[in-house]
Amino acid sequence: MTTTPQTPELACCAPLTREPLAEGEARDLATMFKALADPARLRLLSLIASHEGGEACVCDLTEPVDLSQPTVSHHLKVLTDAGLLTRDKRGRWAYYAVVPQALDTLGDVLRTQHAGSTPAACC
Amino acid sequence: MTTTPQTPELACCAPLTREPLAEGEARDLATMFKALADPARLRLLSLIASHEGGEACVCDLTEPVDLSQPTVSHHLKVLTDAGLLTRDKRGRWAYYAVVPQALDTLGDVLRTQHAGSTPAACC
Repeated sequence: MTTTPQTPELACCAPLTREPLAEGEARDLATMFKALADPARLRLLSLIASHEGGEACVCDLTEPVDLSQPTVSHHLKVLTDAGLLTRDKRGRWAYYAVVPQALDTLGDVLRTQHAGSTPAACC
Repeated sequence: MTTTPQTPELACCAPLTREPLAEGEARDLATMFKALADPARLRLLSLIASHEGGEACVCDLTEPVDLSQPTVSHHLKVLTDAGLLTRDKRGRWAYYAVVPQALDTLGDVLRTQHAGSTPAACC
């Protein structure tokens, strides 16, 4: 069973540098950035995303980040509640995968250069 | 006089979804995401970036966000210390501008889709 993120899907937003954010947009984005504002959670997110098959269970993650299982589970809950991970319970373990749309939305909000704007977008 | 960000320039990182982040990279990124994890700071960042000339002083910002001058100044200091804004004192006021490279670096770390998706040295 895949758990749907409890946070409503981010439909926003124009890039930060294009126009002022509305209050509601800023609140939704801040919730997601707060979930990212922790080194352990960033490492967990990158470990899951680059794991074989694009998903990982707590059992795959405790050793690489050198944290206890309850601590890892807590961090994964924060990321799932923020809509950045999905959680799929299968048998004994829950398997986590990143939500690419959520990461892309946040990335697009931050970037000042956008595909199609100038050829020098990336350098 | 333009204040150089106190945070060392982010030379990192490969996209989160490409490979696991190292501990130091995760720490540096978390510091910047923490600065973004506040709705008022996100709104200030977007107001500055979209302001005429790409810069704004505290005097331009208090009214749109409906916060006191000391509160706005505090948020701007957090963003400047994180390397997301520069501060240029001219006469009575300090003028703030976004650091496009910092926003682009964070955006690229998050995005799962990359222009050309080549392992370009630049993205």
